[in-house]
Amino acid sequence: MSADSTGAAIAADRPLAGDPAPGTAAARGARALAGDPVRVAIVGATGYVGAELIRLLALHPHVRIVGLVGRERKGDPLGGIHPHLATRDLHVFDHVPDDAEAVFLALPHGAAAGRVDEFLEHGMTVMDLGPDFRLRDPADYPRWYHFEHPRPELLPGAVYGLPELHRAELAALGRAPGAIVGVPGCYATTTVLALAPLARAGLIGDLVVDAKSGVSGAGRDPKADLHFGEVNESVKAYGIFSHRHIGEIEQELGALGPSGEANPGARGVDFLPHLVPMTRGILSACHVRPSRPVTQAELDALYAEAYGGEPFITVTSTPPATKHVLGSNEFRVFAKVDERTGRVLAIGVLDNLVKGAAGQGIQAFNVVHGLPEAAGLLQLPLAP
Amino acid sequence: MSADSTGAAIAADRPLAGDPAPGTAAARGARALAGDPVRVAIVGATGYVGAELIRLLALHPHVRIVGLVGRERKGDPLGGIHPHLATRDLHVFDHVPDDAEAVFLALPHGAAAGRVDEFLEHGMTVMDLGPDFRLRDPADYPRWYHFEHPRPELLPGAVYGLPELHRAELAALGRAPGAIVGVPGCYATTTVLALAPLARAGLIGDLVVDAKSGVSGAGRDPKADLHFGEVNESVKAYGIFSHRHIGEIEQELGALGPSGEANPGARGVDFLPHLVPMTRGILSACHVRPSRPVTQAELDALYAEAYGGEPFITVTSTPPATKHVLGSNEFRVFAKVDERTGRVLAIGVLDNLVKGAAGQGIQAFNVVHGLPEAAGLLQLPLAP
Amino acid sequence: MSADSTGAAIAADRPLAGDPAPGTAAARGARALAGDPVRVAIVGATGYVGAELIRLLALHPHVRIVGLVGRERKGDPLGGIHPHLATRDLHVFDHVPDDAEAVFLALPHGAAAGRVDEFLEHGMTVMDLGPDFRLRDPADYPRWYHFEHPRPELLPGAVYGLPELHRAELAALGRAPGAIVGVPGCYATTTVLALAPLARAGLIGDLVVDAKSGVSGAGRDPKADLHFGEVNESVKAYGIFSHRHIGEIEQELGALGPSGEANPGARGVDFLPHLVPMTRGILSACHVRPSRPVTQAELDALYAEAYGGEPFITVTSTPPATKHVLGSNEFRVFAKVDERTGRVLAIGVLDNLVKGAAGQGIQAFNVVHGLPEAAGLLQLPLAP
Amino acid sequence: MSADSTGAAIAADRPLAGDPAPGTAAARGARALAGDPVRVAIVGATGYVGAELIRLLALHPHVRIVGLVGRERKGDPLGGIHPHLATRDLHVFDHVPDDAEAVFLALPHGAAAGRVDEFLEHGMTVMDLGPDFRLRDPADYPRWYHFEHPRPELLPGAVYGLPELHRAELAALGRAPGAIVGVPGCYATTTVLALAPLARAGLIGDLVVDAKSGVSGAGRDPKADLHFGEVNESVKAYGIFSHRHIGEIEQELGALGPSGEANPGARGVDFLPHLVPMTRGILSACHVRPSRPVTQAELDALYAEAYGGEPFITVTSTPPATKHVLGSNEFRVFAKVDERTGRVLAIGVLDNLVKGAAGQGIQAFNVVHGLPEAAGLLQLPLAP
Repeated sequence: MSADSTGAAIAADRPLAGDPAPGTAAARGARALAGDPVRVAIVGATGYVGAELIRLLALHPHVRIVGLVGRERKGDPLGGIHPHLATRDLHVFDHVPDDAEAVFLALPHGAAAGRVDEFLEHGMTVMDLGPDFRLRDPADYPRWYHFEHPRPELLPGAVYGLPELHRAELAALGRAPGAIVGVPGCYATTTVLALAPLARAGLIGDLVVDAKSGVSGAGRDPKADLHFGEVNESVKAYGIFSHRHIGEIEQELGALGPSGEANPGARGVDFLPHLVPMTRGILSACHVRPSRPVTQAELDALYAEAYGGEPFITVTSTPPATKHVLGSNEFRVFAKVDERTGRVLAIGVLDNLVKGAAGQGIQAFNVVHGLPEAAGLLQLPLAP
Repeated sequence: MSADSTGAAIAADRPLAGDPAPGTAAARGARALAGDPVRVAIVGATGYVGAELIRLLALHPHVRIVGLVGRERKGDPLGGIHPHLATRDLHVFDHVPDDAEAVFLALPHGAAAGRVDEFLEHGMTVMDLGPDFRLRDPADYPRWYHFEHPRPELLPGAVYGLPELHRAELAALGRAPGAIVGVPGCYATTTVLALAPLARAGLIGDLVVDAKSGVSGAGRDPKADLHFGEVNESVKAYGIFSHRHIGEIEQELGALGPSGEANPGARGVDFLPHLVPMTRGILSACHVRPSRPVTQAELDALYAEAYGGEPFITVTSTPPATKHVLGSNEFRVFAKVDERTGRVLAIGVLDNLVKGAAGQGIQAFNVVHGLPEAAGLLQLPLAP
Repeated sequence: MSADSTGAAIAADRPLAGDPAPGTAAARGARALAGDPVRVAIVGATGYVGAELIRLLALHPHVRIVGLVGRERKGDPLGGIHPHLATRDLHVFDHVPDDAEAVFLALPHGAAAGRVDEFLEHGMTVMDLGPDFRLRDPADYPRWYHFEHPRPELLPGAVYGLPELHRAELAALGRAPGAIVGVPGCYATTTVLALAPLARAGLIGDLVVDAKSGVSGAGRDPKADLHFGEVNESVKAYGIFSHRHIGEIEQELGALGPSGEANPGARGVDFLPHLVPMTRGILSACHVRPSRPVTQAELDALYAEAYGGEPFITVTSTPPATKHVLGSNEFRVFAKVDERTGRVLAIGVLDNLVKGAAGQGIQAFNVVHGLPEAAGLLQLPLAP
Repeated sequence: MSADSTGAAIAADRPLAGDPAPGTAAARGARALAGDPVRVAIVGATGYVGAELIRLLALHPHVRIVGLVGRERKGDPLGGIHPHLATRDLHVFDHVPDDAEAVFLALPHGAAAGRVDEFLEHGMTVMDLGPDFRLRDPADYPRWYHFEHPRPELLPGAVYGLPELHRAELAALGRAPGAIVGVPGCYATTTVLALAPLARAGLIGDLVVDAKSGVSGAGRDPKADLHFGEVNESVKAYGIFSHRHIGEIEQELGALGPSGEANPGARGVDFLPHLVPMTRGILSACHVRPSRPVTQAELDALYAEAYGGEPFITVTSTPPATKHVLGSNEFRVFAKVDERTGRVLAIGVLDNLVKGAAGQGIQAFNVVHGLPEAAGLLQLPLAP
């Protein structure tokens, strides 16, 4: 990340040939750059991801929030639902307004797939922050989420909204009608970004991912195990052997590398998440047995090449802490060879509600609409 | 706070007659609005307040950071000192660059007063975030801070940097040479803003202020009682009967009211601060025995009148939590009459590093320079 | 608290004349000292107070737990409900076993009063940790708890289970049949013990109590405002003007003092509780305007006289932190005169689940049964 | 851990033939059981481990604390150093009293080895809680601790104080003069106990240990990275590739198993510790690639056999949280096969200051002295 890369000067994606067709995201983005903001709605506005979308989109220079949607809400003032956002004169209703041009969906798994037609029919871009459009293989839904996907025919057209790996596809999607983006899961983002340079080089021989997350990743609903008294002063593992993000991690890492045979460790990943007593933040410690010996210089070159130009990624030579990225869309990664054992350790950190959810959704939205990729995302991390 | 008051539309201060004189803060502000930013330096850049100034000023649209200063620093990269700011290509030196036009001082008490000449000589605006220019009576320095003020002749010309009470003075200061602003203390801001409408009406008959603060207010130096193991899962009072901010609180509340006789409770305030296990945030619970019976309707009118047009203050009818303003320059206040006892309770909350320090300093800086008051301060609170 | 006062040497209450009558608590206690433990049941065993009763009673040398009761529980293993207690081979049922001799009730307000007959009929001692037997005036129940007490005729016979103020009454209760103890509320214990020496001397002219509590005082049920994400890194006031413990505080402080006219401040107390981000602990800061000038020496003498012989109370000259008593039945108090203002500040701290609930209940139980008062309560505080 | 195993009924270690020789630990233990407690001193009493030793030993039924030692302390009252222990009438001096029979050393690495002679000369049992007597191979000291061991000839006679693996050796040590015990490190205890049943069966083909610790493990000295503001709301890895406990872990696991060839993964362990925002607690997640396929039934049998009779170990089938053992000497372990990948996951949790330090030291002390192994350690975990 260069020194001024989060500044307003971040270039939009390389221009694609020709003017975008009317009714496409790219056409709306071009209009927004000329002063007429993209009209967006947020469905699932009452949860933590919904709040974070509002926090960021409310100050996005090329967007106007035209609708906030929550079940059985009839114009409830936003401040009653999210007190920290009480200064915004916004209200929550039970339906998406007709004039929305893009919707961000922050819904439980399965809900977005069942409702996507109503948005597509109105020509809206769909930014789904749930899992319904992340996995390409329909069989992965019953396997990891225990439901049959109701619209498997839509999966091939959806794009996995990780701009660092799928930027060109996202930009192309914005020039076609009916864009659907499956914004990645928080653990998947942390893990895939930490490992992508290794996977591309076919180096993942064996893989253990041991991740730690704050509580906000579990959502806002009050549950016994999210009570302050249970979480405070405690650490525990959960989702043992079965966390849903394994599907995404294996899909994305598996697609990288010199051939299908590379990265045997990226299939059958041993992924173990933990709940730690903090509100925000994910750290993924990725323990890699490389498929061949690797030097630190080689590692450094791989990460520099992969991330040197990325607006939101910093390769760091000191172990990163989640606090270093709190409240921002930043991702930081550290990769080292252990000379004693020959293993590689890659550690990634992000804020699960920003780069792990809302911020990444907005970043992908910007790419799809041809807007500056960092628009609305320029806030620096909040520490201490 | 009106619905869109934190938006870009916040009006600058009312224009003062005539063009500002060259070399004044107002002249520099006018130039900044035309595209040439004010060049600022931060002295004490290695502490928590210094970091917060950098976090906010780095994205301020009318400012350019030209110097970061820390003792014995010889060009140290910022990321080594404040890892969360590692993406900014900035370095810390041991001196203020000559071309700075304004300096923010985040220094221990007594240090700013001793060094102010070097800044004034170069025509810089001085924004002091320590106490050296907050108190008007020189006798208050030995009383509350145990040092003799070295430059008492400067005190009458300095302005207490609380824009909500001293906006016109700050703006006038910007049109004169040699401006010195004493940015208020964190507890003082919380308490004075919570009580100002009552004090103006001469209603403070007796006053107990019971305040709670996160740890960052105690600074970044490692001390035994700031160790995580001591602070976590514990609450304690400190600074009993002698907290330094009492002087400011009594000065500012005492200056309000219909006459010198009003607000007997504002002299001899019983102020008790507590350390609570969190990083940021202050809550001041102000227990007032009013000097005459008061109704809720009267209270509501007083607070609405005082704060209706303020860009950073929200009067709330539900008890505010510090989390509702985390990371932002917002202040929220709640004021209620207890019908059972006739007392008045006023509760104020803010983020001690923003509205309690760096943010307020920038707000005052904006006023002094004739810039939009909210410039660089538009971030919404970070919750959960 | 003398150096070895928590040791096994703590004397039992002064012996009362004659052998206790059969079937009384005192008779059971005498039998327990001879080797046959008192058989106790805990109703409401699934909550936080229930767990704490189990934690302490399981190792009480003169007690045997014969029943754990939770609604709709049919022999559920304790470890599934309270994992930290999984090593005890205990199960939770939906009824109190017939052979119980004493019951600890940890139930929502109103529930104990409605069920007390079934326990009294079987001759059990009733230790109620809810409010149903704390208030002597039946009118206080609708006033503070919004329910009509179903058995007001039982109130005169119940004893307020604060041994430091009612030790003799508790001991006498144990020698009569049908003993009912109303174990005090957590805030009431903290506040009343902090102020009792002042109240006895008739010194409370005006009183503001500003209290801070950890989350466990709000119980174990998952609620939106107890979610880790809401509590962490935040402070807020709640129960404004209406907290239920005001009734207890005014009752107990009002009963002390040289005459009914003394302590005007103890009527119409301004009590404000706060939720702070920790699990256990209460700190009550009691701001007193004394009814006449008072010296520090006088204060010291009052507190030394009141608490010099108390096994669980320490008068401290440095500000106490809640962590200093964590997990123990200790209460610490600090009382100082502010020479500048003439006010008195009294600060008390305790662990709300021990001295504020389960521990205090056991302490009162010991007194009622003529057992050593500290039996089962000898654990030292857990810090850091 | 059987249901009542922490109760008073825990059997002492199997009696060894004959009366212990005078002057041995076993002789002192026999005398203590007859009513004359073992006289112990604690060197390094001012730190966290020192405080925890005092907290537990002060109530140990067969021990009397005769000396607390801290550098440059001249009779300082304990309460000024550890406020939570203020109720104990104890003072800290700068030397060990002559009449001590056993010393617990809580000192920085290297310090105990240099001072051990003065204790041995007086016939004291040495319980060293630092690393100086944990490693058998002198070359491991420069390798992991960067110092040359000053008394390598003492290493063969010292016993690694993990009773679950070395109970018989500890008991034998107590019957000889000059006993030195190297009490294990906190991470080593967690990891070795989690894996010992697998190591004994020769099943550790490849091993990644990802551990999480609270802050108290880093000691009480104020350091920049232990400041509440740095630790709170953050997670980070540290000690990357070089944590000192790797030596212990490899030594102990390597010594188990059917032959030297077994457990290749136990050599070259990939051990990564993390600092999480809590005060106490360690969780070690041990990711094992077994050297041959293993079934869940086989795992269950291995752990049941290893730990069925252990007083402080519980094998659990639900993922353990550190809070489940807080403040107690308990260790809980969970071991499962992932059918998808064939890997084995073993998770262990403990309180780093109790079973990871002071409690374990006392447990080993009890074994050495022939006292009931759980004496002084019967406290149940403190939750929530």
